Amino acid sequence: MQALHMNKGNGDTSYAKNSTVQRKIISVGKRIMQEAILEMMYSNVVELESMGIADLGCSSGPNTLSVISEIMETVEAANRHLGRPLVSEFRVFLNDLYSNDFNEVFMSLPAFYNRLKEGKGIGFGSCFVSGVPGSFYGRLFPTNTLHFVHSSSSLHWLSQVPAGLDSKALKCVNKGKLFISKSSPQIVMDAYSMQFRNDFSLFIRSRSQELVPSGRMVLSFLGRKSADPTTQDSCYHWELLAQAIMSLAREGRIEEEKVDSFNAPYYAPCTEEIKEEIQKEGSFTIDRLEGFEIDWDGGVVTDIHTPQGKQLVGQRVAKTIRAVVESMLESHFGIGPDVMDDLFIRYADIVGTHLSQSRTKYINLVMVLVKKG
Amino acid sequence: MQALHMNKGNGDTSYAKNSTVQRKIISVGKRIMQEAILEMMYSNVVELESMGIADLGCSSGPNTLSVISEIMETVEAANRHLGRPLVSEFRVFLNDLYSNDFNEVFMSLPAFYNRLKEGKGIGFGSCFVSGVPGSFYGRLFPTNTLHFVHSSSSLHWLSQVPAGLDSKALKCVNKGKLFISKSSPQIVMDAYSMQFRNDFSLFIRSRSQELVPSGRMVLSFLGRKSADPTTQDSCYHWELLAQAIMSLAREGRIEEEKVDSFNAPYYAPCTEEIKEEIQKEGSFTIDRLEGFEIDWDGGVVTDIHTPQGKQLVGQRVAKTIRAVVESMLESHFGIGPDVMDDLFIRYADIVGTHLSQSRTKYINLVMVLVKKG
Repeated sequence: MQALHMNKGNGDTSYAKNSTVQRKIISVGKRIMQEAILEMMYSNVVELESMGIADLGCSSGPNTLSVISEIMETVEAANRHLGRPLVSEFRVFLNDLYSNDFNEVFMSLPAFYNRLKEGKGIGFGSCFVSGVPGSFYGRLFPTNTLHFVHSSSSLHWLSQVPAGLDSKALKCVNKGKLFISKSSPQIVMDAYSMQFRNDFSLFIRSRSQELVPSGRMVLSFLGRKSADPTTQDSCYHWELLAQAIMSLAREGRIEEEKVDSFNAPYYAPCTEEIKEEIQKEGSFTIDRLEGFEIDWDGGVVTDIHTPQGKQLVGQRVAKTIRAVVESMLESHFGIGPDVMDDLFIRYADIVGTHLSQSRTKYINLVMVLVKKG
Repeated sequence: MQALHMNKGNGDTSYAKNSTVQRKIISVGKRIMQEAILEMMYSNVVELESMGIADLGCSSGPNTLSVISEIMETVEAANRHLGRPLVSEFRVFLNDLYSNDFNEVFMSLPAFYNRLKEGKGIGFGSCFVSGVPGSFYGRLFPTNTLHFVHSSSSLHWLSQVPAGLDSKALKCVNKGKLFISKSSPQIVMDAYSMQFRNDFSLFIRSRSQELVPSGRMVLSFLGRKSADPTTQDSCYHWELLAQAIMSLAREGRIEEEKVDSFNAPYYAPCTEEIKEEIQKEGSFTIDRLEGFEIDWDGGVVTDIHTPQGKQLVGQRVAKTIRAVVESMLESHFGIGPDVMDDLFIRYADIVGTHLSQSRTKYINLVMVLVKKG
């Protein structure tokens, strides 16, 4: 888990500077989030004096605190509309793994508090932001302390490489690939599905203890529409990254055995897998579950059929993916910045060519879960 | 405030590697802290299911989590002794300024949780550690959420350069000095005392809202025994740093005007100043207030009268001070690493010579405050 973190700081390859797609995903789910908050506020007969809000997988960069502002504004709009007093104390918890760049997040807090103080009528002192490092596949918060949980672009990360696939016997069973592929043996698909189910179930179970009754979660993460885990929507960005890595392996610049033994701790589940785990656990009702198509570049590049457009879209996608997976690749392949640069130049080319022929998209699932009362 | 932070990371000049004196200070106050916790536990008629603990000015490095372990162990020892169930949920809040190296602290949490799980019978999941960035001169936590507050080696830092001394008229009134000195005009002493009183009062007022009735604070920070703020105990480490800086100024490597305009946001109060502010605010009773002499090097170097001992003690003190004040000097004087290195080589010499002639010590005050019921 220590090897998985978004690129730190705010330089050229940082996550903070390359998270447009994740922002797009947040904006696509924004209406659903607002409606979930409003329903919670309207269905609540008592006023909330102190409200606990958590963002799980907050990462670092501009997206982190903008979601929090959005949530607080929606809550206060509902209170105003209902003629209730504003929330006295917002307790805001920003969670991510231990190796996340919390320093970067915390340095932007003074400006965040100033904006609150000036713009929104919420006095400083009524919003308490803290950082809660740790894996959300397990308990993070005391019992019954949260009212609203948000998580975006995080739950498609597994807690580990699928159990079994890291064993000696099965380690290299997924030859030349980084994730599920058309050529993967069935055992790979099964191991991934099983790992996701176990992780997701643990996530739900942990949150069920932390959320108050009628508390809500808005979970947004990459998934797929069909039951088949090898559809392009759910794995083709890994397929193309494997092509780029294998081209370096053929030149002897990356060990091919290391490609065979790499299995990304990632999974894009179908809605059935999710629904079954939620029903099995039993603490939550599914209020909504919707899927949205998201362009790999966040929809920024409009004309991908010109040579420039093709190049640009490839580069943007490569930067986005690099900011997310670099720490993992570095730790597994032990490659330095030169090979890393070369890898993502090749990836950009491959992605640009692919997208100019077939505009594969991500499927982003957004769901609202309500804690049973 | 952004300019004040301990040196980050864990390199040669980092605070993590140069905080022996602060560890010594913690160990000297350890018995008092334990007794304060035991009194709180014994005087409490109901058992505590969930306990809120805060360390204010936690910094980064080995001291940060060792204090927390100490507190939790003492609480559980009391519960065992009283035949009560152990605390179900420890809520641990680590506070420091926004620019503190929280990343460093958080990276050591997995090992901390493992030690808890293995050694102390406190299961993972019953201790929730979070980082709370912000100034403790103001509200940091929701109302009535803390049972025990610890702060060590932090409250001698003021919230700002004493008000007035940063005005144009008075900016350079403390010529050639960095802090209160025998040669300082009275207005400098008054401005420092006033700033401390205002800050300390705000600290007490903020905590009084956050602590539950009968909650306790153990505050440990540098102070002085006499009413005179120019005694060596309370300011001579600054006096010698001014000598080192002025020697660079005479060589034109630091602007002398910048020395004149620098006033450290630091103060070593006498017990009267502290007592008066606590009584004025009215929410706390002073259970204990004691002073301890602390060697500038934490008492590590025993023979300072040999040439090697003299050199060694100077170097150790210089490293300790550098880890704490470098960020501030860098921001005010705009000096690079070369001049900084040179400055602390000179400082080490000056300190070694001084200590071999006169063993000036810090006075560390330790106090226990009880929130009125």
